[in-house]
Amino acid sequence: MKYFEDVRVGDKLVVGRHTFTAEEIKSFAERFDPQPFHLDEAAAARSQFGALCASGWHTAVMWMRLRMDQMRLEVEAQRARGEPVAQLGPSPGFRQLQWRKPVYAGDTITYASEVLESRALNSRPGWGLVLISFIGSAFVERRPQ
Amino acid sequence: MKYFEDVRVGDKLVVGRHTFTAEEIKSFAERFDPQPFHLDEAAAARSQFGALCASGWHTAVMWMRLRMDQMRLEVEAQRARGEPVAQLGPSPGFRQLQWRKPVYAGDTITYASEVLESRALNSRPGWGLVLISFIGSAFVERRPQ
Repeated sequence: MKYFEDVRVGDKLVVGRHTFTAEEIKSFAERFDPQPFHLDEAAAARSQFGALCASGWHTAVMWMRLRMDQMRLEVEAQRARGEPVAQLGPSPGFRQLQWRKPVYAGDTITYASEVLESRALNSRPGWGLVLISFIGSAFVERRPQ
Repeated sequence: MKYFEDVRVGDKLVVGRHTFTAEEIKSFAERFDPQPFHLDEAAAARSQFGALCASGWHTAVMWMRLRMDQMRLEVEAQRARGEPVAQLGPSPGFRQLQWRKPVYAGDTITYASEVLESRALNSRPGWGLVLISFIGSAFVERRPQ
C-alpha cells in the first residue's frame, strides 16, 4: 500500500482473476441474492440470461477479495524491503463498475482498477481521499402493450 | 414487483432492517474482505474505527438480500390477488449508497431506497431502465510530514 501522495489520477492496476463456478454462484446467491437465475440452472435457462450467472454483488466482492489478497502481498514485500506501509480506510474505490454483461458459470473474470480523482483533506489531516465511481442500474420489464 | 410504468422518480421504499452480529461480520470478512478491523476485535480497537465493524460490501449485500425477501412477499401477494407480476433484471439500483459511517457489531441498520431516474428503452422493447447512483470512496493515509 502506497501513501496518498504516491497515488496518481489515471493509475491503472490489474488486480487479479477469478473463475466463477456454479457451486460458488449458488452459494453466494442463497445467502445474499436469491434470484432464480443465480440459484438454479433450469430456472436460469428460462430467464433472460439463458444460463446460470453470478450475482452482480458476487462479482463485485470478488474484486474486493482479490485486491485484499494482492495488497497483503504488497505489504509483505514492502516490509521485507524495510519500507513504510500506509494505512487504508475500509472502502476501496470503483470506476464505472457497471454490470454490463452476465458472468456465467465457468467464466473467468480479470479485474482492473483506475484512479479517477484524488485530493488532500483539510477536514482530516494526515488523510487523502481517492474517489472512484460505481454506477449501478437495473432493467425492469415494461407493461405488456 | 410492479411494471416499469408503475415506477416513479422519487418513489421511496423502506426495504427492511438487519442487525450485524460480530460472528456474521467476521464470517463475511474472512470470505470477501479480510481486513483487520472486520476480522478481529483487538485489531479493530487499534484501528481508525476503534471497534469491530462490518465490511461496506456486507452492508450493501444485506440490502440486496432484504429487498429480495421483500420482493418475494410482494410477488406472493400479487399472485394471491390474481395480478400480473413483472420481471426484474438482476442488478437493482442504489442512490447515494455512500459508506458514510461505520456499522459496528450489534448495530441495526434500516435500509431505504429512492428512484433517481427511469426511462423507456428503444434498444430493448418491453423493458425500461431504472437508474440509481452508488458512490464509493476511500480514505487513504497521507505521507507523514
